[in-house]
Amino acid sequence: MAITSPSLLLLLYHLLVASASWWQLTGAAYIAYNTSGGVVPGKLNVHLVPHTHDDVGWLKTIDQYYVGSYNSIQAFFYRWWRQQSDATKKAVRGLVSSGQLEFINGGWCMHDEAAVHYVDMIDQTTLGHQFLKEEFGFLPRIGWQIDPFGHSAVQAYLLGSEVGFDALYFSRIDYQDRQKRKDTKTLEVVWQGSRTLGSSAEIFTGIFPENYEPPPGDFYFEVNDKSPVIQDDPLLFDYNVQQRVDDFVAAALAQANITRTNHIMFTMGTDFKYQYANSWFRQMDKFIHYVNKDGRINVLYSTPSIYTDAKHAANEAWPLKIDDFFPYADRANGYWTGYFTSRPALKGYVRTLSSYYVAARQLEFLKGRTSSGPTTDSLGDALAIAQHHDAITGTEKQHVANDYAKRLAIGYAEAAKVVQSSLTSLTESISGSGHQMKATIYDQCPLLNISYCPPSESDIYDVKSLVVLVYNSLGWRREDIIRIPVMSDSILVVDHEGKEIESQLLPINSALLTLRNNYVEAYMGISPNVTPKYWLAIPVTVEPLGFATYFIKSAKQTGSRAAMSMVYSSQGMENAKTEIEQGNLKLQFDQDGKLTHYVNKRSLVKSSIEQAYSYYSGSTGTFIDPQASGAYIFRPSGKFPIKLEEKVPLTILEGPLIHEVHQQINSWIYQVTRIYKTKEHVEVEFIVGPIPVDDGIGKELVTQITTTINSSKTFYSDSNGRDFIKRIRDYRSDWELQVNQPEAGNYYPINLGTYIEDDTTELSILVDRAVGGTSLVDGQIELMLHRRLLHDDGKGVAESLNEKICINSKCEGLAIQGKLYIRIDPLGEGAQWRRSTGQQIYSPFLIAFSEEHGGNWSNSHVTSFSMMDSSYSLPDNVALITLQELEDGSVLLRLAHLYEVGEDKHLSKMAYIELKKMFPGKKISNITEMNLSANQERVEMEKTKLKWVVENSSSAETVLRGGLVDPSKLVVELGPMEIRTFILKFDYAHIGSIDR
Amino acid sequence: MAITSPSLLLLLYHLLVASASWWQLTGAAYIAYNTSGGVVPGKLNVHLVPHTHDDVGWLKTIDQYYVGSYNSIQAFFYRWWRQQSDATKKAVRGLVSSGQLEFINGGWCMHDEAAVHYVDMIDQTTLGHQFLKEEFGFLPRIGWQIDPFGHSAVQAYLLGSEVGFDALYFSRIDYQDRQKRKDTKTLEVVWQGSRTLGSSAEIFTGIFPENYEPPPGDFYFEVNDKSPVIQDDPLLFDYNVQQRVDDFVAAALAQANITRTNHIMFTMGTDFKYQYANSWFRQMDKFIHYVNKDGRINVLYSTPSIYTDAKHAANEAWPLKIDDFFPYADRANGYWTGYFTSRPALKGYVRTLSSYYVAARQLEFLKGRTSSGPTTDSLGDALAIAQHHDAITGTEKQHVANDYAKRLAIGYAEAAKVVQSSLTSLTESISGSGHQMKATIYDQCPLLNISYCPPSESDIYDVKSLVVLVYNSLGWRREDIIRIPVMSDSILVVDHEGKEIESQLLPINSALLTLRNNYVEAYMGISPNVTPKYWLAIPVTVEPLGFATYFIKSAKQTGSRAAMSMVYSSQGMENAKTEIEQGNLKLQFDQDGKLTHYVNKRSLVKSSIEQAYSYYSGSTGTFIDPQASGAYIFRPSGKFPIKLEEKVPLTILEGPLIHEVHQQINSWIYQVTRIYKTKEHVEVEFIVGPIPVDDGIGKELVTQITTTINSSKTFYSDSNGRDFIKRIRDYRSDWELQVNQPEAGNYYPINLGTYIEDDTTELSILVDRAVGGTSLVDGQIELMLHRRLLHDDGKGVAESLNEKICINSKCEGLAIQGKLYIRIDPLGEGAQWRRSTGQQIYSPFLIAFSEEHGGNWSNSHVTSFSMMDSSYSLPDNVALITLQELEDGSVLLRLAHLYEVGEDKHLSKMAYIELKKMFPGKKISNITEMNLSANQERVEMEKTKLKWVVENSSSAETVLRGGLVDPSKLVVELGPMEIRTFILKFDYAHIGSIDR
Repeated sequence: MAITSPSLLLLLYHLLVASASWWQLTGAAYIAYNTSGGVVPGKLNVHLVPHTHDDVGWLKTIDQYYVGSYNSIQAFFYRWWRQQSDATKKAVRGLVSSGQLEFINGGWCMHDEAAVHYVDMIDQTTLGHQFLKEEFGFLPRIGWQIDPFGHSAVQAYLLGSEVGFDALYFSRIDYQDRQKRKDTKTLEVVWQGSRTLGSSAEIFTGIFPENYEPPPGDFYFEVNDKSPVIQDDPLLFDYNVQQRVDDFVAAALAQANITRTNHIMFTMGTDFKYQYANSWFRQMDKFIHYVNKDGRINVLYSTPSIYTDAKHAANEAWPLKIDDFFPYADRANGYWTGYFTSRPALKGYVRTLSSYYVAARQLEFLKGRTSSGPTTDSLGDALAIAQHHDAITGTEKQHVANDYAKRLAIGYAEAAKVVQSSLTSLTESISGSGHQMKATIYDQCPLLNISYCPPSESDIYDVKSLVVLVYNSLGWRREDIIRIPVMSDSILVVDHEGKEIESQLLPINSALLTLRNNYVEAYMGISPNVTPKYWLAIPVTVEPLGFATYFIKSAKQTGSRAAMSMVYSSQGMENAKTEIEQGNLKLQFDQDGKLTHYVNKRSLVKSSIEQAYSYYSGSTGTFIDPQASGAYIFRPSGKFPIKLEEKVPLTILEGPLIHEVHQQINSWIYQVTRIYKTKEHVEVEFIVGPIPVDDGIGKELVTQITTTINSSKTFYSDSNGRDFIKRIRDYRSDWELQVNQPEAGNYYPINLGTYIEDDTTELSILVDRAVGGTSLVDGQIELMLHRRLLHDDGKGVAESLNEKICINSKCEGLAIQGKLYIRIDPLGEGAQWRRSTGQQIYSPFLIAFSEEHGGNWSNSHVTSFSMMDSSYSLPDNVALITLQELEDGSVLLRLAHLYEVGEDKHLSKMAYIELKKMFPGKKISNITEMNLSANQERVEMEKTKLKWVVENSSSAETVLRGGLVDPSKLVVELGPMEIRTFILKFDYAHIGSIDR
Repeated sequence: MAITSPSLLLLLYHLLVASASWWQLTGAAYIAYNTSGGVVPGKLNVHLVPHTHDDVGWLKTIDQYYVGSYNSIQAFFYRWWRQQSDATKKAVRGLVSSGQLEFINGGWCMHDEAAVHYVDMIDQTTLGHQFLKEEFGFLPRIGWQIDPFGHSAVQAYLLGSEVGFDALYFSRIDYQDRQKRKDTKTLEVVWQGSRTLGSSAEIFTGIFPENYEPPPGDFYFEVNDKSPVIQDDPLLFDYNVQQRVDDFVAAALAQANITRTNHIMFTMGTDFKYQYANSWFRQMDKFIHYVNKDGRINVLYSTPSIYTDAKHAANEAWPLKIDDFFPYADRANGYWTGYFTSRPALKGYVRTLSSYYVAARQLEFLKGRTSSGPTTDSLGDALAIAQHHDAITGTEKQHVANDYAKRLAIGYAEAAKVVQSSLTSLTESISGSGHQMKATIYDQCPLLNISYCPPSESDIYDVKSLVVLVYNSLGWRREDIIRIPVMSDSILVVDHEGKEIESQLLPINSALLTLRNNYVEAYMGISPNVTPKYWLAIPVTVEPLGFATYFIKSAKQTGSRAAMSMVYSSQGMENAKTEIEQGNLKLQFDQDGKLTHYVNKRSLVKSSIEQAYSYYSGSTGTFIDPQASGAYIFRPSGKFPIKLEEKVPLTILEGPLIHEVHQQINSWIYQVTRIYKTKEHVEVEFIVGPIPVDDGIGKELVTQITTTINSSKTFYSDSNGRDFIKRIRDYRSDWELQVNQPEAGNYYPINLGTYIEDDTTELSILVDRAVGGTSLVDGQIELMLHRRLLHDDGKGVAESLNEKICINSKCEGLAIQGKLYIRIDPLGEGAQWRRSTGQQIYSPFLIAFSEEHGGNWSNSHVTSFSMMDSSYSLPDNVALITLQELEDGSVLLRLAHLYEVGEDKHLSKMAYIELKKMFPGKKISNITEMNLSANQERVEMEKTKLKWVVENSSSAETVLRGGLVDPSKLVVELGPMEIRTFILKFDYAHIGSIDR
């Protein structure tokens, strides 16, 4: 052979060592890979768990994610399931029943664990478990919280153990914690999340060595992934079986080195994978085949259940874990504590609708569920989706946040119809009025918080009265003050007995009115044509699970009228202190307008107190570490106190019910400090924002409440609104903390509230939504209220957290309106306030409006009502958290004890609920206690749940739990922190006073 | 509802217009899409053709592409097929027989059309068609050359019509041509690629409107593609059925506007798609369902065959297209004419092995195919792959080019074993020598071109002789001169009759020796330990399809010896002209060393002639158009003549057989101008490179041969080494050319050669591999020899064409060694030289070496041989292009007429081949004429092939074709340009003189 140029006659060298015929592409080469083996005793067993993690919205909306990639092995399962043919459904059912496809977690989404309320966690998990049970008869066994950014005690004991899970798996824990656990083989533990319920609510918990992806060493096999596939055809180039087998064995041995027992799990997947499932399974088939042929270790297709059973069978004793896994840091400057506060408006909206959903389901039950709709289901669905760990967390892109809000708004609208028709039905149910009436229409005002409420903004009290119906979704009788915007000062309020009520008019401040007009236009597309002048404050009293009716009438026809607040300014009063006093509470402000003293005449607490604002400047990254502050991460570069602007004086409003001190702290912080005649706490209402960023600096706004309490580095924060967990500044109980971020590293999620204490006194603060908080100085609580940042923090969302509101195309930063509730108690007395007021904050009155023409309302309408026996209300330590009619007509009832063991000297005790009095006039024909997610009977769950051995466990523990319910007595016992779930069946032959 | 912040209560506006229940995610939503319809008469029919285009190597090697993405609907089909289970194979066979899966083109690859030789095109297509026939009984009907960068006449008539295709489809034509064709509805034509065969070899040809992708308007549905999918679930957000239907209809109408008949094709795919086929089919299902429901147009799943049949059934008359579609430009500065030359070493290697494969198959046939191997199959496979339009083109990444070369080297090595054993068998087949002999070993020297040939580099002629066996794969008796490197000047050559031959020794120049030592080390990993001193030139004479044996012996034992060349330098001869003369040819060089005159004493041609080098500087893009010169694109930014370096004089070698003039043109161009006693052309051998790029400028080296021929802007270039096509500078016959690139836009691919002519004279140049060429000045031919560029040209390869050779880690630019053949003839006499010398260049002698000990070679070996009858050789106008024993023992025979109609006054005539004399001593028991790719009988093909109506066609044409072969006479008739393909069966009962 003569070649004309030698240049590409290369690799003849290779040729010399190659058999001349191996290139020949002939002959059969089909290989049947053997993947049928299971666990092999005595060998290291690698459990391959093929999985995909599909965020229910993040960078795209949930529907965009779902529709965009059509795929049989991924989440959004419900959407997918609906669209399948019977043949596909049958095939999937086969895979589920053979164990090849296993549902894990099984919630409607994989909820966040920091910014979610336990009621929402329960509801969304119940929704998912209900679907799986109905369609597949399937009960999930495994908790799978692989992505949430830290892990809560409530997740472990309530949404884990109490649901009946045998294990819980996740990946994100502090990097220092992880290192220690690897070093000590303590990545797998038994977790007792509740101090109160202890070992009765523990769960085996596995933390992955790094993340929820395949192990290091190139084992990613999505379409377009770059990991080397196994080339096992000797007739093609680059045969690499041995090399890949060696890679795999090395990865397995490395993981075995940090794991107890001879079982390890490889999580074979990650975010949004298995779009083409074959691309993964083909490679895993080959790994199983060739690694098992190699024989050093054993590989098998597995599921988290199979893995859990293998771990259990190993009879190992596991380390004990208590408390929780907050905060989460993935590196020295990477504290994922910003998202505790990110998107406070979305967090607030979710919290508001959470309680609305509780109330609406009660009203749906009271009227009777209508299968043809409307129902509360779409609100339940939207709320469930909103609990996703890139939804409520605020870590989604803006358009995705908009989508969640849209779904919530749509869900609300349908639930509002249920509420309206239920109220219509309940109020018109006077027997005997046989003549045909026009159905009463009840309007609601979702924008009442910003004083937008068209039904009440009427000037026509001459001809008719405004009917205000107030529904109380708590199980307790309740007195409180409602506020509605009105146009006129010439009005008065009468109750359902026709008796005049002392009410108070408070001029609406211009800061709120500006917000009202702008935000109504921005979100409703409406420019309001009238502007209310006053808040009308009305003290109301409503029976448990019931309503009361009030009437606002023109005052012209009578002598008396609503009391106008006295308004004065501190401007003239140079060097004078300002003092306001209502009921038992007295507050003092100094000449600069700063709150200085708090006095409770009843409890005799006297305390100096300060409240101030500061902001952190968001880091944009440093030379050494480019980590920026962003939607997930809180990384401050400085902290700057916000001084009161001297020119703006205090404005004081005083009246018979309420005193308010208004302060324009600076151009973008407006605050009202409010005390009530009938309450012993301070209510701080703030409007913050738009946070200015013209200086190019992102800011994170905090408020500090400072006392002289000697809190010794210690404070308490709630777990998902339920148990309080002790936090110690710059300290972790599980490892020797290396402090890198003295502020961000001490932040914790707060859903209900936080408190500090010393030998004599405790300071409690409750919140109206999820926020981040800490105590950086003894005696002080700091809460983060709002964040506006200009840099992305590199965790994937690829958008800066810079929320805006736009009217037409003119945009400005988003303002947040919210409330804090502050109280100082003698030591030991705070818990009761925190728990009961906490319930009131979570479940405000549901207010509906109608009109009375001609004064004959009471003749034709029920004006007050309680579902319960008139002599009965729930015990003070018990809350009704679910009352819901299911599709089959049975009723889901959940009762929650509100106190931990030792939390309150009177209330941390067994509670008794008399169901007969809760449901007078109905006969409970059947009661079944269920697990928390109501997909199985509690006794069955207890029987089948795996028991785990804890290292060095003492047996001194006693846990107080309620006993079985005697069907004849129907008294439910609740031990501290217990939540019990029941399915009730009513015998409708015994219809009582409630018209169904 | 009271919300704590209004900010995300957005989109209530939407809510007002939305039905409250549509959000509810319940109820069945499975939709059975109706895709069962076919063509609907009277409507616009959109044929959806799902396809993927998977380059057989480009950015990754062929095996990397194949193994990396495992996929049922893609090419590399043969590799995939081997690995399938019987169940899968059965399913695929079902899809093929139902027409749901259609093989189109069906070659081993989708070959290039510019840089490929027609013999290679035929071989690779035959290989693919053979596989499809064997496995599926399937005969491809459609040519599908969607990606090659321009389209050749040979593709249309030979690899299209003569294969039996009913249509040919592709996309890449000049953008100006495309625009005119759109404007005139002439994108679909009947193409007659051959002037000679005219309408007897025409094919319906469809050019896609833009590319081979889905139409404009977002219809890409690969995993991760961004086109909006059809969201047809009314219960999810963003329902978009009507919008997407409108998009589709708009795209269809736009295409219908530029297309004749009411059938249009949407090519639903592009490069490397359908990795997850479902992602496409799911959307196409929906489009078919909803667009047909809409009713404005009709959509159907189709294939190119179905589309072609629909076009044919429309009874339309189509415009006529002749010649070809070169050059291709996709924009004003985007002429894809660089790749005609890119990677000249790879192009040369492929050409070399192409002819070696022809010869090796002859020798395999002569010995008898051994099913246990070795065979020539792996060389056939490697060559087939190398014809891919990103292989031979030079437009692949470097590592992929290396892979092609590796495959070729491996294929060569196996074929060399076939050659060796065949030669052993043929030379040892003396009957009667019954005693056991040691088998004769024949070595070959693939690096002979750079003077590396270990068998001949021996100094030991004292004890033994070097046996040189010369095989002639042409069908003609042949006299030529071979050259082998030797160590000693004290040698002589005798022929097989023992008669001494006049031979000549030529000192090997140091430029070549440097190349030799470096490249042997770089590619073989061997540092040669001896260096040959001389080329030994030996005139040899070999019978057709036969061999002759020569012996090189020590001259010491005799008086005579090989003649040493006289070597002198022009250095002393100031102002003197240099003149050399051999046989009929005389050349003159001026005092600067420039060739000036060419004289042929026989033909009396006297012509002034110049040969010079220039380089184009490769554009790196301009401000207006960033297009750079690169692997595909030729875009010069300037042209610079290379001047002779004055200090280096001519070195002249003169001897009895050959005269050579050596010139070091500059530091990186070395040239030998050579004339032979027995030849009437000038051979120019050059070593060019490394092209210097230290100045940061990429360069493209050209040589110009300039005469005074008045060529009137006209020159001729071959189509894939076969038909010559007339080219006119700055002109296209199909449209009014707008000239943007006066150099790049006039370049054409050259595989065989090019010529210019005027009233009296013609200048012909033949090449040894594919190059680009042009005539930019009347009387001048310019050829591009080498390219080294520093920028990528943005066509996807993402690598600059900067070839290097490395020894250890020291790299320099690649050098190219090659040859040009130049001749000037009286007008009308060039064709015969071009065709017959062209065959010799394509098929050089195959040389093998052995050793003779003791002078008894002739007693024990056959020393000369011809397969054919000793009185017979093929006619001068006929070439044997395939002689191959197939697996079943039958023999594939292809005979090609070498002349076009009117090309030569004596040879453009019917030729007659006597098969009985071709195969003396064998009985042809059966002869069947086949189509070109030999997968069906020619008569069947003619019967079933669709006939098309041509617009305004005249019926004056007469085409000369050979008639049916009379099996008793066995004389094959061949009309001009005809290639006829036969399957022969021999009756081995009649074994003659050839030992099988």
